[in-house]
Amino acid sequence: MNKDKVQIFDTTLRDGEQVPGCKLDTAQKLIIASRLDEMGVDIIEAGFPVSSPGDFLSVSEISKIVKNATVCGLTRAVKNDIDVAAQALQYAKRPRIHTGIGTSESHIVHKLNTTKEDIIARAKAAVAHAKTYVEDVEFYAEDAGRTDNAFLAQVCEEVIKSGATVLNIPDTTGYCLPDEYGAKIKYLKENVKGIDNVTISCHCHNDLGMATANSIAGAINGARQIECTINGIGERAGNTALEEVVMVFKQHPYLNLYTDVNSKQLNEMSRLVSDSMGMMVQPNKAIVGANAFAHSSGIHQDGVIKNRATYEIIDPLDVGVNESSIILTARSGRAALAYRAKKVGYELTKVQLDIVYVEFLKFADIKKEVLDEDIHQIVEASKCLQA
Amino acid sequence: MNKDKVQIFDTTLRDGEQVPGCKLDTAQKLIIASRLDEMGVDIIEAGFPVSSPGDFLSVSEISKIVKNATVCGLTRAVKNDIDVAAQALQYAKRPRIHTGIGTSESHIVHKLNTTKEDIIARAKAAVAHAKTYVEDVEFYAEDAGRTDNAFLAQVCEEVIKSGATVLNIPDTTGYCLPDEYGAKIKYLKENVKGIDNVTISCHCHNDLGMATANSIAGAINGARQIECTINGIGERAGNTALEEVVMVFKQHPYLNLYTDVNSKQLNEMSRLVSDSMGMMVQPNKAIVGANAFAHSSGIHQDGVIKNRATYEIIDPLDVGVNESSIILTARSGRAALAYRAKKVGYELTKVQLDIVYVEFLKFADIKKEVLDEDIHQIVEASKCLQA
Repeated sequence: MNKDKVQIFDTTLRDGEQVPGCKLDTAQKLIIASRLDEMGVDIIEAGFPVSSPGDFLSVSEISKIVKNATVCGLTRAVKNDIDVAAQALQYAKRPRIHTGIGTSESHIVHKLNTTKEDIIARAKAAVAHAKTYVEDVEFYAEDAGRTDNAFLAQVCEEVIKSGATVLNIPDTTGYCLPDEYGAKIKYLKENVKGIDNVTISCHCHNDLGMATANSIAGAINGARQIECTINGIGERAGNTALEEVVMVFKQHPYLNLYTDVNSKQLNEMSRLVSDSMGMMVQPNKAIVGANAFAHSSGIHQDGVIKNRATYEIIDPLDVGVNESSIILTARSGRAALAYRAKKVGYELTKVQLDIVYVEFLKFADIKKEVLDEDIHQIVEASKCLQA
Repeated sequence: MNKDKVQIFDTTLRDGEQVPGCKLDTAQKLIIASRLDEMGVDIIEAGFPVSSPGDFLSVSEISKIVKNATVCGLTRAVKNDIDVAAQALQYAKRPRIHTGIGTSESHIVHKLNTTKEDIIARAKAAVAHAKTYVEDVEFYAEDAGRTDNAFLAQVCEEVIKSGATVLNIPDTTGYCLPDEYGAKIKYLKENVKGIDNVTISCHCHNDLGMATANSIAGAINGARQIECTINGIGERAGNTALEEVVMVFKQHPYLNLYTDVNSKQLNEMSRLVSDSMGMMVQPNKAIVGANAFAHSSGIHQDGVIKNRATYEIIDPLDVGVNESSIILTARSGRAALAYRAKKVGYELTKVQLDIVYVEFLKFADIKKEVLDEDIHQIVEASKCLQA
């Protein structure tokens, strides 16, 4: 069966950068953009040009250096936003303007204080205006996650007529469950005239911890672009994590979907973004956390030493991590102790191991992690080598 | 319609503590256990008694102080493990022994080097032995996520006959997608004799970022217990995050499922565990991250100032956070600047705001976050009040 490609739309430099206290300067953004380009990302959302002079400059400079990826600039459905974005993108080989407006009841009534008819008119006008500058125009229906499907379909159909090439269906507040979000994409696929000529894009937020699952549900139901950020950074609980999406498709080949991202660069990319923004990644972060491939319980260590696949579905090398770690703690068993003791030079017999293990547990109950240098001390203390 | 309760099985002190370098001592575990009990958790997995003398002591002491929750101890399907666990749990008001064995091809062949028949025999023997000590026996089918459904159903049926009261279906390696995991639970619900007299439990790992989504899919398909940890801590990429599960049910009442956890204690509980273990929570962590309720982009800030629900699905007070923050950065708009300026004493007219905003953007393009004291400086520099 032919596999379908899911395009990776990286918004680390736009939605990802909307993090309090983590602003990047243009020089940092250029480094990240060129590395994203090398890694095989399809679209780089470089910024929101009208928002500040610094952001305009970043989008403009990134447009000059990106070789393969499409470079995208965000706008509201406002003429001046689009004019400014077009100017910032003028040097891009493959420019895309991303424009849109709120479509949920909450946005139409409370934020924009207008009517559904007006929303459609503004959406169409924005897309048509963007189209005077670039061929590739993406439309976002803000808060699509909470937008009534029938109205959402109507908006989508109208902006396709105005020339939109990509339809972004954001779960702006991170509200949806996977079944719900998947069903929304399916509904659009089945009810919007012209939908097969455009790309549906998933843009999910992680407020309930569902961003990755929702994006995958979207792709299973027909979306062919996923918007995401390195380390899942972004406003509030952040966006869909790029590294998770890439590895889900890689680990689940039966979905018949793939991305062009080189997964071997994920770990280094994660560190670059984390260091540049001063935005730390928790040790238990999927794929790129410091502990993602660390085993500390005895049962798991024993299994991994016998056969990696017992407890690891991902080969650490596939994401650019050199090896999985067998960490010694009070939860470790004899197999892990023997494995690490051997690495520092002790070939323990079964009897010796039993003696050293008792000493090891006393030590490990006090100390959080037992290091190589501690092993020497433990072996000496247990006097088993003279036994 | 009647709502069904989903029991929350907290394993912060057992699976959660299997984190390199983050061992808790007994005193710390007692504090956490008593707070989990107060928060309304149904089951506290207090440790793996046979694994070390320190862990035995912790389970035994926790058993003495927990008032409402069931206290559970982990074992392998090994007689001595079960004997030791029963001893550690002897003071518990509501003791539960958790025993089990690997059921996937990978575990049977590579780790245990045995046959399916032997697995079933050992599983039944372990449950029957645990049953001589306690009424409440939970059985785990390790690596159930990768276990063939027909064999898994057979194992489940056999251990129910031996007296198991809870069936834990762990996705040990964090491999499953929500549809797949949900279908597995559904299959068991439909194919295991006696299943309606026991509780099915979800135990998911987050290696692909799917733990919460998988657990919710399990509950939708009939599971009535979810195993989770505070902050989603645990080996590798960790376990399902308790705070996410609790808030998903709270935010999606149409699922007709609820938990008894008092969500107002989630934020404090998160900090207690993070501080005790020295295991930091990333700012973009759902529900409990420092930025979970922080808005920094202009579009979002404007919406939240007009009406909180525009961009926030969860009231911060519901999880014990005092208020959502409007953070000033280069991505902020005039509405946010006016809101914060008013808080520090400046009521700016529209014309004044336009002038101050230009000054603000210059400042914010250089500085990552604009603080209250900076606002004074910016207003002075823009000289708009004299204009």
